[in-house]
Amino acid sequence: MTKPREIKAALLGATGAVGQRYINMLPKHPYLRLEVLMGGESAGKKYGQAVHWLFPDAMDPAMAQKVVRQAKPESAKGCDIVFSALPSEVAAEVETKFAQAGFIVVSEASVHRMDADVPLMIPEINADHLKLLESQKKKRGWKGAIATTPNCTATGLSMVLKPLIDEFGARKAIVTTMQALSGAGFPGVPSLSIQENVIPYIKNEEEKVAAEAKKILGTYSNGGIKASPISMGISCNRVAVIDGHMETLYAEFAHGITPKAAERSLERFAGEPQRLKLPTAPDHPIIVRKENDRPQPRLDRMAGSVPGMSVVVGRVRNGIDGKSLQLTLLSHNTIRGAAGTAILTAELMEREGYLEN
Amino acid sequence: MTKPREIKAALLGATGAVGQRYINMLPKHPYLRLEVLMGGESAGKKYGQAVHWLFPDAMDPAMAQKVVRQAKPESAKGCDIVFSALPSEVAAEVETKFAQAGFIVVSEASVHRMDADVPLMIPEINADHLKLLESQKKKRGWKGAIATTPNCTATGLSMVLKPLIDEFGARKAIVTTMQALSGAGFPGVPSLSIQENVIPYIKNEEEKVAAEAKKILGTYSNGGIKASPISMGISCNRVAVIDGHMETLYAEFAHGITPKAAERSLERFAGEPQRLKLPTAPDHPIIVRKENDRPQPRLDRMAGSVPGMSVVVGRVRNGIDGKSLQLTLLSHNTIRGAAGTAILTAELMEREGYLEN
Amino acid sequence: MTKPREIKAALLGATGAVGQRYINMLPKHPYLRLEVLMGGESAGKKYGQAVHWLFPDAMDPAMAQKVVRQAKPESAKGCDIVFSALPSEVAAEVETKFAQAGFIVVSEASVHRMDADVPLMIPEINADHLKLLESQKKKRGWKGAIATTPNCTATGLSMVLKPLIDEFGARKAIVTTMQALSGAGFPGVPSLSIQENVIPYIKNEEEKVAAEAKKILGTYSNGGIKASPISMGISCNRVAVIDGHMETLYAEFAHGITPKAAERSLERFAGEPQRLKLPTAPDHPIIVRKENDRPQPRLDRMAGSVPGMSVVVGRVRNGIDGKSLQLTLLSHNTIRGAAGTAILTAELMEREGYLEN
Amino acid sequence: MTKPREIKAALLGATGAVGQRYINMLPKHPYLRLEVLMGGESAGKKYGQAVHWLFPDAMDPAMAQKVVRQAKPESAKGCDIVFSALPSEVAAEVETKFAQAGFIVVSEASVHRMDADVPLMIPEINADHLKLLESQKKKRGWKGAIATTPNCTATGLSMVLKPLIDEFGARKAIVTTMQALSGAGFPGVPSLSIQENVIPYIKNEEEKVAAEAKKILGTYSNGGIKASPISMGISCNRVAVIDGHMETLYAEFAHGITPKAAERSLERFAGEPQRLKLPTAPDHPIIVRKENDRPQPRLDRMAGSVPGMSVVVGRVRNGIDGKSLQLTLLSHNTIRGAAGTAILTAELMEREGYLEN
Repeated sequence: MTKPREIKAALLGATGAVGQRYINMLPKHPYLRLEVLMGGESAGKKYGQAVHWLFPDAMDPAMAQKVVRQAKPESAKGCDIVFSALPSEVAAEVETKFAQAGFIVVSEASVHRMDADVPLMIPEINADHLKLLESQKKKRGWKGAIATTPNCTATGLSMVLKPLIDEFGARKAIVTTMQALSGAGFPGVPSLSIQENVIPYIKNEEEKVAAEAKKILGTYSNGGIKASPISMGISCNRVAVIDGHMETLYAEFAHGITPKAAERSLERFAGEPQRLKLPTAPDHPIIVRKENDRPQPRLDRMAGSVPGMSVVVGRVRNGIDGKSLQLTLLSHNTIRGAAGTAILTAELMEREGYLEN
Repeated sequence: MTKPREIKAALLGATGAVGQRYINMLPKHPYLRLEVLMGGESAGKKYGQAVHWLFPDAMDPAMAQKVVRQAKPESAKGCDIVFSALPSEVAAEVETKFAQAGFIVVSEASVHRMDADVPLMIPEINADHLKLLESQKKKRGWKGAIATTPNCTATGLSMVLKPLIDEFGARKAIVTTMQALSGAGFPGVPSLSIQENVIPYIKNEEEKVAAEAKKILGTYSNGGIKASPISMGISCNRVAVIDGHMETLYAEFAHGITPKAAERSLERFAGEPQRLKLPTAPDHPIIVRKENDRPQPRLDRMAGSVPGMSVVVGRVRNGIDGKSLQLTLLSHNTIRGAAGTAILTAELMEREGYLEN
Repeated sequence: MTKPREIKAALLGATGAVGQRYINMLPKHPYLRLEVLMGGESAGKKYGQAVHWLFPDAMDPAMAQKVVRQAKPESAKGCDIVFSALPSEVAAEVETKFAQAGFIVVSEASVHRMDADVPLMIPEINADHLKLLESQKKKRGWKGAIATTPNCTATGLSMVLKPLIDEFGARKAIVTTMQALSGAGFPGVPSLSIQENVIPYIKNEEEKVAAEAKKILGTYSNGGIKASPISMGISCNRVAVIDGHMETLYAEFAHGITPKAAERSLERFAGEPQRLKLPTAPDHPIIVRKENDRPQPRLDRMAGSVPGMSVVVGRVRNGIDGKSLQLTLLSHNTIRGAAGTAILTAELMEREGYLEN
Repeated sequence: MTKPREIKAALLGATGAVGQRYINMLPKHPYLRLEVLMGGESAGKKYGQAVHWLFPDAMDPAMAQKVVRQAKPESAKGCDIVFSALPSEVAAEVETKFAQAGFIVVSEASVHRMDADVPLMIPEINADHLKLLESQKKKRGWKGAIATTPNCTATGLSMVLKPLIDEFGARKAIVTTMQALSGAGFPGVPSLSIQENVIPYIKNEEEKVAAEAKKILGTYSNGGIKASPISMGISCNRVAVIDGHMETLYAEFAHGITPKAAERSLERFAGEPQRLKLPTAPDHPIIVRKENDRPQPRLDRMAGSVPGMSVVVGRVRNGIDGKSLQLTLLSHNTIRGAAGTAILTAELMEREGYLEN
């Protein structure tokens, strides 16, 4: 493997809860250089002063010293890629401007995810969806393009469904989530709302999870994505945990399935990122635990060779008949479910030549 | 309604977490008199000194002064009914002794629940299952008899399923629970295990919920219960909440169903306890909330005319097609899910003549 | 005791976290009638629709139907008293307008608390400070007047210090607090900040507690208050508890003190509200617990004959010598520490003729 | 610095909450080799199977494979040092046997801490107290000896007091703690006791903290320790946090003190471990934060060059006069407050020749 050239990156929404994950992860990256931080009200201030830093880890001192720039294309001049951690309300307009100005944008915002010509990427699942970028550029007449990464809850679920559907055929997935506080950003959920409580609703989340998972698991052909035919019923809940989304999955398949066969399928799962040995690709995208009380958010959210990038599955057991299955899964919502998958997507794009102008 | 005579009650397992709920509820009861408290290691001590009292409510002073007696039939002499809040390990032997000695035992222990000749009671659902008591006495040659109340998680679920199955036909129920800490008793779950965490497993719970719900929802005929044919997939989780079990339900029915029709069916649900105006019967066994973020354990667990006795349902919405439905339900696990249903069962037994020797 | 006439009350800041406590408490009051609710953005809406209701208790239906009015004197026409639960930023201007227009305002906002001519009331401690109202009216040329109630943390502390200082002489109080989330209002503390954490700082709180306690404990003479000479060192912390401020107190006195003598002094404490049998006055303003692990917020915050109005003290023990003492105290921060003391102040004012025009 | 020879270590109480910290820390140590694990009921089983592992970090695979041995001197044959993480009930007898058999025991149990001839070590403070070991051996006629490390709460407090007392003179320290759950071991505090609560009492803790801090801060002379004359008032509380003990400190000194002078004194503090560059010695034993809302347990407990070994101090501010001071401190209770200080003590002993037979 030849060492890639250095890639210069810019970051939109650098001070938000998701943006901070990039500041946390990228300074250790072998070739992605975070050159430009952009923000709204924080523009003009040093990052270290502008941000309400959420992590125990000390902030990278070089990042702390960077002056946050205004969120406009000129700020990112010379960068090879623009990550967007913008809230959806502003993402639509701002990201479009960057793509028009010729930038490749990798966005975590929901606004463009379901656009027919925009790839919704989990590199282990749908590396070939990047092909949409060409048709997107043509159709929109842009020099640049937008790729997106999914909702944090859709991410873990799709990764677990992918090998199972491939081997046993898609039918039906009934999912209940217990989602972490960091998924709502900062300040996010008021402590008075969640202390000694569970909140059985997250706005628009259930619709997003179902629609996004079907697109992610869909098939590329002729410049478009044919959504997976799986039926989905999703119930989203918020629980008092900082990081790590838990999900119970009951699924029905076209063919017979056993817990043993399912575990084998999950454990073997790997994709382009593993084949290419991308730096942010975990050895095992899915880790299967055999103890009956795992996964647990506090103990398992940072599991694996790239902490936070593996989905941990446990309690794989029979469903109600020979074609159904039950299990529990956990994924780190701001690493695998946000910044980590975006960085992995950038690594894939680099290797496949999408970042060369 | 004529005022019932006074009923003298004894309590097995008085100092445990469930036992304490009786001490909390019965002193306010119009005609059930808690005369005798029984315990193991606490025998011989005053209740107020023997118990590690778990509630903010002050303990009834008369109860505090009662000397705990040994758990044997002679201790309960003169009582009309014996409530058992014993742990299952000891319940089998002790409860049998009381029944042999002629007592009517209403037990929350799991040990006898699935016995073919033992009723598993939720009075709103299956008042007629009390008929099993006669055949039980005959078959076992006992002067007394044992009735049981279900697992706390099975209780809320069964109450919600009952009117829906009656109107739309039983097929399949996929359930995920988020269960409160008090369900594990005291000391129960270590704080180090649940702080900043969710535990995706409760020993034997999923099997119990499925089996018990089918029996509760079953049909009495010829001295036995024919279990409901519904298929069930259950995933049980523990969350950091003191009281109140949340459950998400995805269900498939034999006939077409809409959220509106389901809500109407749930709101109208009532049973013998409501018809007989039993003192512990809530006006509405099921309360349907229309806001999209309810029920919540902290806000709704004590809802209704008899606090803690109503199941609160919300988020009633479409499933994946015209014959499926999704909703969230909450029930108080130590009131409706334990002491409250046992007391309600005793009230029903009194009205139907089962406590007259 | 003759039954008082009905008192008509208006409420400023009705939808906020503190305002909601009045809506929770006043509908059950024997003679205070909450006639007028006033708000900012909520003006014009029905209260039930405008408020994000924080309590498990169902909202009084008559309150839910009331239309919130604009926060100006005309809205409160015909009312005998105006409670203010406004945030301090807006309280200064708005409360002044009401007092100028002739209303008696009882305010929980901090803005006027330290004004020399404004009483800072805990009726059990300083009923005579109400005399300031006359000089206030004269000096300011107002027809009405403003009385205030203290910071929630200062309240419990002052109540405990009062009998001890009276009997043993004031010297020094070193206090550390563990304050509840509801003290910060809603949305208040973000869950991401407090989950699995303690925050060792509450803005301006330590200064307020020290200054206010000295004024509350001060002496009225010649139209002014002479502050208590006690020295205070305060450390304020936020912990993950919904309601109930805990405080540890180390205190030094002028005279010898023993735990037994201190407990006797605390238990005997009573003031004008108890003498006058005011409806919101608890039988025992201070409850002393002898167990070594009390008070605890969850178990003791609603203790006493008027739930939430008693301060619960425990762990009374020696300090470092014969003139010092240590103890732990708990008070309900939004009842005794806010709405409850304001209502008690209104009751006192009514009995002492301050509400008669 | 010459690289030390390899030191072979044995561990008593390997499966407990404190014992696990050694398993977590020692496999990465440059020269301490954990050769022997000993336990009670777990003896004979593989460690990985015997332990209820509490950490998110994966267990060292070599440790997982080790067979736990019985807690007797023969099990540790060939080891240079024995760490004891035994509960105090059994420590007295077992540790004595090991010392009699010739082992140097470094114990975290409280049972021997206050023995006049047993050093109570925080190597930064009292490296010279190791001299007690010689007189201990002589007096007791043992071939081996026992050194102890302090209570977790006393540790952070003593480290902060040391430089302040040295520079400004000892008088009085009033301390309130907010202690983490892991301090109570596993299963320790029941979740039902601490959820939505604070517990204002930890058995025997306050007495221990005061007595131990005075000994740690005492002066070695003539084969004994003269305790520090400082007066202490301690209030211990348990809060719902996994790791990290917070303490507020109000202190009075013999000489004038300012926050600035105190901060300088704290920041400069270093001891033998820093001078000797011991591997587990943090660059800065005390880290001073200038933000007004730090330290916080979740953000700061792993601060410093050796995670968990630095005490983090913040909110350094005036007390009530020119000779008093207030501050907040945080230390990791199972690293600096337990295993870390024991390991540091072993490192010091090695360098000073106490481990050579």
